[in-house]
Amino acid sequence: MAKVGVVMGSTSDLPIVQKALDTLDAYGVEYQVRVLSAHRCPKEAAEFAQQAQTSGFQVLIAAAGMAAHLAGALAANTVLPVIGIPCKSSSFDGWDALLATVQMPSGIPVATVAVDGAKNAALLAIEILALHDGQLAAKLREARIADKDKVLQADEALNKPTK
Amino acid sequence: MAKVGVVMGSTSDLPIVQKALDTLDAYGVEYQVRVLSAHRCPKEAAEFAQQAQTSGFQVLIAAAGMAAHLAGALAANTVLPVIGIPCKSSSFDGWDALLATVQMPSGIPVATVAVDGAKNAALLAIEILALHDGQLAAKLREARIADKDKVLQADEALNKPTK
Amino acid sequence: MAKVGVVMGSTSDLPIVQKALDTLDAYGVEYQVRVLSAHRCPKEAAEFAQQAQTSGFQVLIAAAGMAAHLAGALAANTVLPVIGIPCKSSSFDGWDALLATVQMPSGIPVATVAVDGAKNAALLAIEILALHDGQLAAKLREARIADKDKVLQADEALNKPTK
Amino acid sequence: MAKVGVVMGSTSDLPIVQKALDTLDAYGVEYQVRVLSAHRCPKEAAEFAQQAQTSGFQVLIAAAGMAAHLAGALAANTVLPVIGIPCKSSSFDGWDALLATVQMPSGIPVATVAVDGAKNAALLAIEILALHDGQLAAKLREARIADKDKVLQADEALNKPTK
Amino acid sequence: MAKVGVVMGSTSDLPIVQKALDTLDAYGVEYQVRVLSAHRCPKEAAEFAQQAQTSGFQVLIAAAGMAAHLAGALAANTVLPVIGIPCKSSSFDGWDALLATVQMPSGIPVATVAVDGAKNAALLAIEILALHDGQLAAKLREARIADKDKVLQADEALNKPTK
Amino acid sequence: MAKVGVVMGSTSDLPIVQKALDTLDAYGVEYQVRVLSAHRCPKEAAEFAQQAQTSGFQVLIAAAGMAAHLAGALAANTVLPVIGIPCKSSSFDGWDALLATVQMPSGIPVATVAVDGAKNAALLAIEILALHDGQLAAKLREARIADKDKVLQADEALNKPTK
Amino acid sequence: MAKVGVVMGSTSDLPIVQKALDTLDAYGVEYQVRVLSAHRCPKEAAEFAQQAQTSGFQVLIAAAGMAAHLAGALAANTVLPVIGIPCKSSSFDGWDALLATVQMPSGIPVATVAVDGAKNAALLAIEILALHDGQLAAKLREARIADKDKVLQADEALNKPTK
Amino acid sequence: MAKVGVVMGSTSDLPIVQKALDTLDAYGVEYQVRVLSAHRCPKEAAEFAQQAQTSGFQVLIAAAGMAAHLAGALAANTVLPVIGIPCKSSSFDGWDALLATVQMPSGIPVATVAVDGAKNAALLAIEILALHDGQLAAKLREARIADKDKVLQADEALNKPTK
Repeated sequence: MAKVGVVMGSTSDLPIVQKALDTLDAYGVEYQVRVLSAHRCPKEAAEFAQQAQTSGFQVLIAAAGMAAHLAGALAANTVLPVIGIPCKSSSFDGWDALLATVQMPSGIPVATVAVDGAKNAALLAIEILALHDGQLAAKLREARIADKDKVLQADEALNKPTK
Repeated sequence: MAKVGVVMGSTSDLPIVQKALDTLDAYGVEYQVRVLSAHRCPKEAAEFAQQAQTSGFQVLIAAAGMAAHLAGALAANTVLPVIGIPCKSSSFDGWDALLATVQMPSGIPVATVAVDGAKNAALLAIEILALHDGQLAAKLREARIADKDKVLQADEALNKPTK
Repeated sequence: MAKVGVVMGSTSDLPIVQKALDTLDAYGVEYQVRVLSAHRCPKEAAEFAQQAQTSGFQVLIAAAGMAAHLAGALAANTVLPVIGIPCKSSSFDGWDALLATVQMPSGIPVATVAVDGAKNAALLAIEILALHDGQLAAKLREARIADKDKVLQADEALNKPTK
Repeated sequence: MAKVGVVMGSTSDLPIVQKALDTLDAYGVEYQVRVLSAHRCPKEAAEFAQQAQTSGFQVLIAAAGMAAHLAGALAANTVLPVIGIPCKSSSFDGWDALLATVQMPSGIPVATVAVDGAKNAALLAIEILALHDGQLAAKLREARIADKDKVLQADEALNKPTK
Repeated sequence: MAKVGVVMGSTSDLPIVQKALDTLDAYGVEYQVRVLSAHRCPKEAAEFAQQAQTSGFQVLIAAAGMAAHLAGALAANTVLPVIGIPCKSSSFDGWDALLATVQMPSGIPVATVAVDGAKNAALLAIEILALHDGQLAAKLREARIADKDKVLQADEALNKPTK
Repeated sequence: MAKVGVVMGSTSDLPIVQKALDTLDAYGVEYQVRVLSAHRCPKEAAEFAQQAQTSGFQVLIAAAGMAAHLAGALAANTVLPVIGIPCKSSSFDGWDALLATVQMPSGIPVATVAVDGAKNAALLAIEILALHDGQLAAKLREARIADKDKVLQADEALNKPTK
Repeated sequence: MAKVGVVMGSTSDLPIVQKALDTLDAYGVEYQVRVLSAHRCPKEAAEFAQQAQTSGFQVLIAAAGMAAHLAGALAANTVLPVIGIPCKSSSFDGWDALLATVQMPSGIPVATVAVDGAKNAALLAIEILALHDGQLAAKLREARIADKDKVLQADEALNKPTK
Repeated sequence: MAKVGVVMGSTSDLPIVQKALDTLDAYGVEYQVRVLSAHRCPKEAAEFAQQAQTSGFQVLIAAAGMAAHLAGALAANTVLPVIGIPCKSSSFDGWDALLATVQMPSGIPVATVAVDGAKNAALLAIEILALHDGQLAAKLREARIADKDKVLQADEALNKPTK
């Protein structure tokens, strides 16, 4: 059963969102991916969030650009943690999406990651699930070690003790 | 019957919104003023917008700060023209509210005015109503003349032909 | 008879403006398209706005870039609603045009849409016309449903109940 | 036993952080509050994060201003979810802290809330804990209802059906 | 006869503009000060600029805030050099006025000075007049020397050869 | 004898500066073009400005990018009017050059034009020269008319009375 | 003999600069403090930098606001390390000074610290001197320990093991 | 023995960092180049900085993008001068890296250069080493002369006394 709901405002955000899906796949985390716009189908988006907890979801991830209301619109309809991915669009290099996602008013939090930071959004969701899933927690720690080793190997490859 | 619906996300926006109400009063335009948050009562905000046309409204004005979703959330639920007032809050001098209001995705327009520009929001609503109300149109033209005269009088008062 | 006047500051803005024209065409709304610069032919631009109401226009749309004065210059010369499209140019990603369009002083509103948001400018004009044109209102509502259906179909196509 | 670790980079951030502590208190969530600077005591900050999981923490909250490295420095040393509060300081209105907190590189997520958004940081932590604590989840839902009712009461108080 | 026309968009700009007037006074340069709004009395503003050259003006200075169109509106109606002073208003710290003043399209230059830089606007006008007025040029050079001496005296007063 | 000195900080700015030279050529204004860096040859740049008036120059134009000190460095060494062209470089889209050029301290004005606005820099210089050169003034007025006619012809070509 | 030259563009920068002087005093580092403007006395500023090395200086610190050219102007005239302090002025919250200080072109570096970061400018100078002064290095390490201890004491004072 | 440690957060920064290495090579300055991430291997990065002084390093250079903590993380662990190169990444044109590098809190300075300003970072390091290395100082002065001569030759090549 899917524990993570990944919602994008438009299929044009899919290339970004795919990095989140790949990460969830790599960790073996079941997810459901949805296209639901806060502006084009607000009722469906609201209903998805309202039913998210009873549907078994534990975390929602929302990706949207421009006046990116999607994460906030989901968060307004659930007390599940909602992670927002601000997506760059044709103008403003993501500033609009970042501010529209992160500057939520008191009472309705959105956990915002970097612009186009879909991989980190997935990792944050996994960190939350891992609080009650020792295997996931172990995988996260292994990935951290693997990431570190990759840096250290690059360091070793490049390192010139004295030139 | 109220033709303009003026919605604010929080009563803390009332000092700004009051300038819109005063302007509508000055033009004798009936309005209804509402407090409806896109995040704290999304269902009520959506329903208000869905019923706005049958309630007799012709224009909606929405004032909100930070990740200002209110105008967009109303616009997503009505084909009435929606005017957005981005309100300054404690950070970012209104940049967040401006971008969250104006950068709407294709399909759902919001007519955005200046940060804290509540008087202009009311005037824009009146300009729309005046398209089918000759008296309002006349009042708008008179106000333009009065505004001009005030400038010209200030000019005359200050003007020093040669110093 | 044309009800919408679409003005651009330079023919270089035409690729953007074309999206507004296509939208107006799709709704069967008659329009007149003009090239009138606030800086290169200020008198002609002002006269166009001054005569706009008696010419039968109900809404004006103005598209300009950089220190984008066009929408404001039209608004200063008419009490018709004026919609401003800030256009991106070679520098500053549209910030200059957005601020020069939206930050109008009290008394002279411009209804500003997103940077390069020409389709939404047309839709906003149509929403205003639709207040007294039931057929247009119906078309707007149908378009909203069509937009929604497109999202829901994309959702269905993509949706993977559990992966 | 404390489930939430609340870390601030300096006691000057306490007035902001206090809003998080008050919120955690209101929900009866045990927390430990720490002053640990990523720059002045990096070793102690790193060790706190490394031992956070075995210390029984489930979520960390970090508040810092300027080149706000604290949340990222904790996140680099734990796979617990880390929530970052960018704090305004004397310059740049919080832009520096927001970007230094949210723009984390791939692999090390920080769940960023609004500038000075300490209450939302606490609520996000509570949402995470509530995934396995039905009472907390119920309290969150009640608080949402209370928030909504407060808006609707303000609306009723202000509402003037037709003026 | 006044050689410099100093125009402000609103009397609220007078405290800033006064620094320009004081500077012109200090140099004995005759000026005419006007209140003319590009938006509230566009015709009068345009006519002033159109007649500026035959009125004997050699330079125009325009001060305005927000979507500061005044300098551009004058420049569009004269080939006299026009100097723009972007004025700070209640939002955006002058960014809007700076961009609306300086980002003029090709063909219509505005000589822009710093935000609220009224003294420099006057000095720039005087530098232009001084090209054909040896006495003014001498005064400018003396003022530069006086400015330098003031710095060097402050330096001497403060200077501690070794502490 | 050259009346306009056109200085660039580096030959990499030549493609931008060329538009200024072409404009000066089109008006038959003699100019001298120099490569002088405020940072790489500060003494030569200062000396050029110090001798500019006795060399017969009436206006200086300076083009530079990044921390664009060139216009200010020339202005600090002459009471001739100095026009600054902020040039875009690889980062920040010209924001750095704009602010480093326009935000001059009281006493030393720089007449700043748009980012990469070399043509307008030349036109501003010509407007200054035209104050005492009737032929130049006439050419400027003709160019304005030609510019206007080009817009009106484009308007006519595009104009569709009713569609 | 003074090893650090501390230059400010204007005595109005003294309240900021004083924090640098206090820090140098606390470390017993001899300094000379100067008021030298890159714009009001460019020759004197240049000469100071040209002679800095033979005067025995090892590091220069320059504080200036707005189009802050001072650090760059000094750096252009010496191969000593130059540290720049961007100072906030009445507009733009220090953005102008930061960009004008840090965005130096290739070949002429300026070591830039935070806006109004005078204490860090002094510490950076001391770090450079400490490379060949064991006592200074020891003091720096002691100060780091003292800073750390202050944080840890604040932590202890505040710390509530479980609440 | 390497006197300069050049650290990059990721090998993706190598194309930028290479300009620093080339400059150090050109001056015959021995360096060690490392890949050490403040987030992926914080312990190794901290240890490198802690041992830097005893390893014989005199200056550290750190290059990183996004929430660029690397320079600050090194500076927190050494009293050697640390030079920060903010690197542009896929969003925000380097604004995030610049602010995360330069806005260090009091007590822990980072000497920040321009975005992607790797050559200047190397030159700054060389200027510091040159304080006690007469040959390096001479090379720096020669390079300044060579830079100047290149500008003056370009000037001569381009210079057209009168056109």
